[in-house]
Amino acid sequence: MDDIQFQLKAVVKCSSSLDDNDIKLSELNDFMRESAEPLLKRGAPPGCGAEIEGWGVSGEQLKLDLRSDRFVRAHDALIRLKKELGRFLAKYRIGIRGIEIESYEITMNWEEGIKLRRLPFVKELKHSDGRLTLYLDVDYAALEKRIPDRLLRLLEEKKTAASWKGKSEHWELLFESRSERKKSFRFDKDPTEEMVKRGWIRHAAGRGQWIYGPQITRIFRAFERILIEEVLKPLGYEEMVFPKLVPWEVWKRSGHARGIYPEAYYVCAPKTRDPEYWEEVMDYYKVTNEVPLEMIKERIEPVGGMCYAQCPPFWIFLMGKTLPDSILPIRVFDRSGTSHRYESGGLHGIERLDEFHRVEIVWIGTKEQVIEHANELRERYRRIFAEILDIEWREAWVTPWFMAQEGKAGLAELKEVGTVDFEAILPYSGKWLEFQNVSVNGDKYPKGFSVKLQSGKELWSGCSGVGLERWAAVMLAQNGLEPEQWTEGFRRITGELPEVFRFL
Amino acid sequence: MDDIQFQLKAVVKCSSSLDDNDIKLSELNDFMRESAEPLLKRGAPPGCGAEIEGWGVSGEQLKLDLRSDRFVRAHDALIRLKKELGRFLAKYRIGIRGIEIESYEITMNWEEGIKLRRLPFVKELKHSDGRLTLYLDVDYAALEKRIPDRLLRLLEEKKTAASWKGKSEHWELLFESRSERKKSFRFDKDPTEEMVKRGWIRHAAGRGQWIYGPQITRIFRAFERILIEEVLKPLGYEEMVFPKLVPWEVWKRSGHARGIYPEAYYVCAPKTRDPEYWEEVMDYYKVTNEVPLEMIKERIEPVGGMCYAQCPPFWIFLMGKTLPDSILPIRVFDRSGTSHRYESGGLHGIERLDEFHRVEIVWIGTKEQVIEHANELRERYRRIFAEILDIEWREAWVTPWFMAQEGKAGLAELKEVGTVDFEAILPYSGKWLEFQNVSVNGDKYPKGFSVKLQSGKELWSGCSGVGLERWAAVMLAQNGLEPEQWTEGFRRITGELPEVFRFL
Repeated sequence: MDDIQFQLKAVVKCSSSLDDNDIKLSELNDFMRESAEPLLKRGAPPGCGAEIEGWGVSGEQLKLDLRSDRFVRAHDALIRLKKELGRFLAKYRIGIRGIEIESYEITMNWEEGIKLRRLPFVKELKHSDGRLTLYLDVDYAALEKRIPDRLLRLLEEKKTAASWKGKSEHWELLFESRSERKKSFRFDKDPTEEMVKRGWIRHAAGRGQWIYGPQITRIFRAFERILIEEVLKPLGYEEMVFPKLVPWEVWKRSGHARGIYPEAYYVCAPKTRDPEYWEEVMDYYKVTNEVPLEMIKERIEPVGGMCYAQCPPFWIFLMGKTLPDSILPIRVFDRSGTSHRYESGGLHGIERLDEFHRVEIVWIGTKEQVIEHANELRERYRRIFAEILDIEWREAWVTPWFMAQEGKAGLAELKEVGTVDFEAILPYSGKWLEFQNVSVNGDKYPKGFSVKLQSGKELWSGCSGVGLERWAAVMLAQNGLEPEQWTEGFRRITGELPEVFRFL
Repeated sequence: MDDIQFQLKAVVKCSSSLDDNDIKLSELNDFMRESAEPLLKRGAPPGCGAEIEGWGVSGEQLKLDLRSDRFVRAHDALIRLKKELGRFLAKYRIGIRGIEIESYEITMNWEEGIKLRRLPFVKELKHSDGRLTLYLDVDYAALEKRIPDRLLRLLEEKKTAASWKGKSEHWELLFESRSERKKSFRFDKDPTEEMVKRGWIRHAAGRGQWIYGPQITRIFRAFERILIEEVLKPLGYEEMVFPKLVPWEVWKRSGHARGIYPEAYYVCAPKTRDPEYWEEVMDYYKVTNEVPLEMIKERIEPVGGMCYAQCPPFWIFLMGKTLPDSILPIRVFDRSGTSHRYESGGLHGIERLDEFHRVEIVWIGTKEQVIEHANELRERYRRIFAEILDIEWREAWVTPWFMAQEGKAGLAELKEVGTVDFEAILPYSGKWLEFQNVSVNGDKYPKGFSVKLQSGKELWSGCSGVGLERWAAVMLAQNGLEPEQWTEGFRRITGELPEVFRFL
């Protein structure tokens, strides 16, 4: 923030009068000049920091006008001052009862183009001549909780986001599969439509949700088996069961609480399980055959969301623990449930879903282990895609998934932490579909969930999501629904596709 | 409802005045006597039905006082009358603009003991001398929608529920396993506590939710494999993937919308995915590190619940279809995700959970097929419990699960439709735990989801839920956590339990 100014007016309320004793007042004067003034500049470059623009005593109240630059922000100055003043007043057996914030204004340079409508804890915004003034609505507790600092960080973020506007996300080609038949795929239809026609799938009652019949389920399970046999077993993975309802605490630690809201499916719990509390709702339904949404909304409370990114809730298993270095790398996976995202509108078949199925793979180790393991995984995936699924794809270095999910975009300057996306072309539409990722997440999760290594070394982690619908979308779009068009290896795993239903 | 009386005052509003023409009035008189009166008694026993207690004309309004017993309820009488009156008035080029309900009172015998506080569409309730009077708050559309009929059905239900109060649910012993060591189990500890100590599981961030480590996950997958090899494959089952977010429509058709509310986890979707709509929420979080629940509540809408009973959302796959008889019996299962119930308070370990994992088994056929298949399933389960899991259990005939989940209790008079619960004793607590069920659901689901058979025969279905945590709770409570205490058959399937984590 360039040329930032802080202007804070506060009233310190004391346990008894400060002006019924001249000695005290002159001593207070000395305190302000000799103790307070230097205190508010401590640590700042010469000529910088906070200063007391004025002060005055009236009964039990001490009024303070503080002004500062970015070096000792006025609210930090006030917090420093409170401590020192408390010590000084204690000599006179006077205590500090509380501090009232009369006003707090922050002024900084701000580009005309970046519009702000409102901000939390800001009662008024003024923007003119390239200067932005925030009139804060805060109490002393809010200052102690660092609300102004996070507010300024939020402004920085908005500035950066505005500078990204229009720019696409980072994308850098790393690898491309090549085979002779590249331009002549065996199939040119939309696999979702074909599956609907054949009765393999049917749209479910919810948005972006399908019911998968025996044939496609056989294909999903074949993908899982291939993944287990070709990747997970050889690389030493063990299966776990990760939770699927994600309480706020997890998203706070994983960072998703910063930006997941527009895409989350929220979970609410009943405020109580007492049947009497719910009787009116049940009675209303029984009499109208309509679910009374407003009555329900009054009786439930949001407790979190449905599984979105799959690995975050696992980290509670390790939260607060210290691991011996000898057990690294840890390699676990989960395939115990659905993931849910409120996707953008329109129908997209099984390529873009509100409810989908994914095997989530997590590895944890030293930085070197985690990076090396990501490469091993990529190698093994490539073998599956080339030899068993027989598809064409490319790999790209993109904005790390957790940055994207926190609502951050822009360049992935990092060369070690980041996401590799696997993308494949869908011949029927000519569009590329991301169907797989391998991510090195750095120390983000161990830090967020306070997991440490005995040696004190940095603990890193990586994750990779295998979306069963995405694999199916790519493999069926490129190779079609007829098993004769698939590799023998894949056909051997699926066996003959089961026929269970027929309709008239 | 004994000795019930209906008293309805309505005003029929016409398109032009009814009393500016004497002929019309006398003809109206004739209409009332000759057409209306007999119409309101049609179908009722002699001396019964509805009658017009009085009527009068004032301008464009025709006032009607109707009274009836239970045979032609006054609102039905009004609906009949409207049709006939419309035909009569049409001769004079007069139309009916609308009908206003001035008052509607229903009086019936009602036991002193059964308290009612309020009812939907009832503005006042009076209860004295064994008579209950309902003063309804309804418009004509509500009468057409049969609100009064469903209100009376609701009262019948409350009466029945009151008569059950204090009585336990139906429970009738069908089968008991017997072995010599019955009274001397190999283990007497709480398996949840033991698993926590060994680091096999850790409580997750949510209520009644655990994270399952590699050892217990291996045991869960062993259960699944046993189930597939010993039951599902031999009985001809194929796997499907059922949806896990359950929209209201499904619960309306399955009957759960009648009573599931106190135990459901609700799912809400964002009202829009527009990031600007969510900016305030994100800003607030970024500035406070607290999730703003009230702001979120304003921005989301309940769309249904998380998976509760597992098979209902499958039925959308068949909804509205006619099946050829030759494909019966249909046998499918699902193991694609979690189930969620807001369970009663307190900690219960893995025996009673808010989030659990279940293989759901569904079979569909003629009545005979469905009943026979339920027996085959029970036989095969027994073999697993006796020979592979080596546990003691009993089986009981209980209130059908779907009645219980709709908030109904009481006797299971039916001998063909109903639920068999498998229960096992937990040695550490001496309590019985229901760990499995086999249910014959009759024609409930085919009816609710409009699925028909080509031959016109009644279509039935059954379902059976295998809760992995429940199997584990029973098997570990009776046999302990040391593989040496398990059968060789079970050990062969689990293999050596994996050790992935160690903590300092």
